[in-house]
Amino acid sequence: MSEDLGITVKRDDDISEWYQQVVLRAEFADYSPVKGLIVMRWWGNSIWEAIRGFWDPIMRNHGLKNHYFPLLIPESLLKREAEHFEGFTPEVAWVTHAGENKLEEKLAIRPTSETIMYEMFSKWIKSYRDLPFLVNQWANIMRWETKMTKPFLRSREFLWHEAHTVHKDKEGADEETKWGIDGYEKISEELLAIPVIKGKKTNSDKFAGADYTYAIEALMPDGKALQMGTSHMLGQNFSKPYDVKFMGKDEKWHYAWQTSYGTSTRLIGGLILAHGDDKGAIIPPKVAPVQIVIIPIVFKETDKNIIKKAEELKEKLVNHGFRVEVDSRDEYTAGWKFNHWEVKGVPLRLEIGPRDIKEGKVVVVRRDNGEKSSVKNIYIEQAIRDELDDIQIALFNKLKENMDKNTVETKNVDELKKALTQKKWAIIPHCSQETCEEELSKKVEGGPRVIPFDQNGVSGRCINCASNAKYSLYWGRSY
Amino acid sequence: MSEDLGITVKRDDDISEWYQQVVLRAEFADYSPVKGLIVMRWWGNSIWEAIRGFWDPIMRNHGLKNHYFPLLIPESLLKREAEHFEGFTPEVAWVTHAGENKLEEKLAIRPTSETIMYEMFSKWIKSYRDLPFLVNQWANIMRWETKMTKPFLRSREFLWHEAHTVHKDKEGADEETKWGIDGYEKISEELLAIPVIKGKKTNSDKFAGADYTYAIEALMPDGKALQMGTSHMLGQNFSKPYDVKFMGKDEKWHYAWQTSYGTSTRLIGGLILAHGDDKGAIIPPKVAPVQIVIIPIVFKETDKNIIKKAEELKEKLVNHGFRVEVDSRDEYTAGWKFNHWEVKGVPLRLEIGPRDIKEGKVVVVRRDNGEKSSVKNIYIEQAIRDELDDIQIALFNKLKENMDKNTVETKNVDELKKALTQKKWAIIPHCSQETCEEELSKKVEGGPRVIPFDQNGVSGRCINCASNAKYSLYWGRSY
Repeated sequence: MSEDLGITVKRDDDISEWYQQVVLRAEFADYSPVKGLIVMRWWGNSIWEAIRGFWDPIMRNHGLKNHYFPLLIPESLLKREAEHFEGFTPEVAWVTHAGENKLEEKLAIRPTSETIMYEMFSKWIKSYRDLPFLVNQWANIMRWETKMTKPFLRSREFLWHEAHTVHKDKEGADEETKWGIDGYEKISEELLAIPVIKGKKTNSDKFAGADYTYAIEALMPDGKALQMGTSHMLGQNFSKPYDVKFMGKDEKWHYAWQTSYGTSTRLIGGLILAHGDDKGAIIPPKVAPVQIVIIPIVFKETDKNIIKKAEELKEKLVNHGFRVEVDSRDEYTAGWKFNHWEVKGVPLRLEIGPRDIKEGKVVVVRRDNGEKSSVKNIYIEQAIRDELDDIQIALFNKLKENMDKNTVETKNVDELKKALTQKKWAIIPHCSQETCEEELSKKVEGGPRVIPFDQNGVSGRCINCASNAKYSLYWGRSY
Repeated sequence: MSEDLGITVKRDDDISEWYQQVVLRAEFADYSPVKGLIVMRWWGNSIWEAIRGFWDPIMRNHGLKNHYFPLLIPESLLKREAEHFEGFTPEVAWVTHAGENKLEEKLAIRPTSETIMYEMFSKWIKSYRDLPFLVNQWANIMRWETKMTKPFLRSREFLWHEAHTVHKDKEGADEETKWGIDGYEKISEELLAIPVIKGKKTNSDKFAGADYTYAIEALMPDGKALQMGTSHMLGQNFSKPYDVKFMGKDEKWHYAWQTSYGTSTRLIGGLILAHGDDKGAIIPPKVAPVQIVIIPIVFKETDKNIIKKAEELKEKLVNHGFRVEVDSRDEYTAGWKFNHWEVKGVPLRLEIGPRDIKEGKVVVVRRDNGEKSSVKNIYIEQAIRDELDDIQIALFNKLKENMDKNTVETKNVDELKKALTQKKWAIIPHCSQETCEEELSKKVEGGPRVIPFDQNGVSGRCINCASNAKYSLYWGRSY
């Protein structure tokens, strides 16, 4: 392991370099021999497992059933919904050969699974009694991005879950689309401690093949928005070409109404970006692979007893359900270790030295604000529980304040320009016309992010064409 | 859903047709639009999730850390260990294009991940202090089988876990190889209720690139062996070409010793084959997606109260941690439902009719032996717990007896031939020469399965060349 683990650039000076250093040095991920594909190391992968552990039971409880569909989709099948195919084909990785043999038809590595799933749904669904039909899959996805890739945020392969649901009427599908995005808000805010704006994408920005798309967007420290999850109302756009229909109570055939929603390992990138500071990552306690690192402060050989005490404390805390490590490596100094675990973003550090043992105390240091306290051994379990809860909330509140501070309502193009240069995003009045979005995109940086559900009383005139505004729209630069 | 869900062929008359019917009609899986790739439906996928839920914490406890490595491996990297490449290249699916563009180098969809992992290990491992280094990944794998595919048992894509470990000496790697195969024995016997023979593969049959391979093999009802998991001692065969080395305490560089072990969704196929009967699947309670199905026996409209009672019972049992469904669909008869859930292999069926309610009782029917009992409501929870435990054990014991009965020690080629025609496998004395294996393969069906750890006193002469036997060897046909 390298001795030089610190982060050498300040986050706000060069967030791109800072992000890369944190990802690599905290060992969230590493670059692989294939450009644009990363290795998710344990530190990063554990966060994905925590997200899965949180979200999977909620989906299960909602009635979604986990399946696993094939990785490869025949070109002809992918093509059947034209808009969808056009949207994805530039980024598809194609399998053309198996062993020495050329395949009869080339096969796409799934960029998403609508087409292969709906081909099967068409076989499985016969009657209104089969509906709603709720399927989920946890899988890897490949999109051969041509833009610059970035670990987690834009990787050519990523892990995700994709839920696909089938309903007998529009209302059922509308409700489900809403349920999906509400769930992602929960993941983001309750689990990852990242506040989001929830709303609808403008038409120019919706999923290829959807009637409409809901999204949650978070504001990153550099003022760019990060899309954290999307939920799509597919209407009957897929059920018609893929023949997903059912016999109704009326004994007639009807095309079904469908939704799909998904979120991915991109969330890990969002977490690193949103919470980190100049020292490295800060991981919210609920998803931290290690919540507490215990560092025995050993001065001489005879202090071996301290390591024993540290191990005992670990065992006690593990039994209380905490995720704990002891770093008793003798080849590193305590200072080096503090730095090491700060880069990795472990929420709490406990220090035990000879004096602490004498006094029956432990020093507790918070990663998020550096606060240090000395806690009596007998109170340690409760103290840690309180601190972790408090960190989880403090991280959320800090971002919420930051977002509030960096959201401005702008009434004209100049105000909007100014906001964007100040690392903010803006709420603009908009007439809803796509041409106005396009024109505005040429005048200022960024683009439409989301039409928030919470409209707070729309008023005024479209920032571009000055006709009456139909809605407020978040506008900003994005990842 | 089709009305015709029963299995129309007896297992022992045509096991291949029987297996296919059970897989499809019990909805473990379905065929996909791509030949050789299946859809794992909820019923099959749940069993994989149960295996993962059992095994992942055991691995974690052993120190393995979950990572996720890229799906695609450059040809040049795959090639570096010659024997390994030769072994896998005939079955590799190749990605040659992304979007409209031809890739500079073709990329293999991982047929296994040694090469891509060890390229990274070489970067990460520096010192003896980093060892042992224990990595696991849960992933999808692609091997473009040219033989006839069969859902779960031989699919071109499957899910698996693959553990890859790095050690400072041979002893450490030997022990780990053993730990892996012991774990698979546990999964097979304790979780899936399938007894296995544990041992070493002969050289002709080991993993491409390994020093030796351990395996567990189970005997299927048609007398064929099914390999249920393998653990490979890789020696330094990969550490040299992939440059996985470490600085020792002696301050010199050493090549590391490595192992890999894995098991896959093939286990689901084994489970269906091993336990099923003429009525369909029988799923061991520990992994059954639904352990108990409650069927309200409703005679007239006024019996709606029975459905309510059934739902109440479900809730009670769910609260006790059981996986329960109520089948109250009014479009099917009770008889149809009995059949439906028998095909699917649910371990216990509870029936509640008007008289049962009056008497405060529930009828409990076991899937494995058809035994029916009437249990008072107040004892139901304990009765069910006992029945499920008993079924789990009974399923194992039945297969164990069957295996004992169908294992014969044969001293010459005629005896061996006879055993193989009687749906048995045989233990043969063997001289250990590969030429003798080859010659024998030409004389009789099947091939070497495994040299059991449990040698029970080897004696006699090689069944082929009549020189002194070095070991006993299981010989049989296989999946």
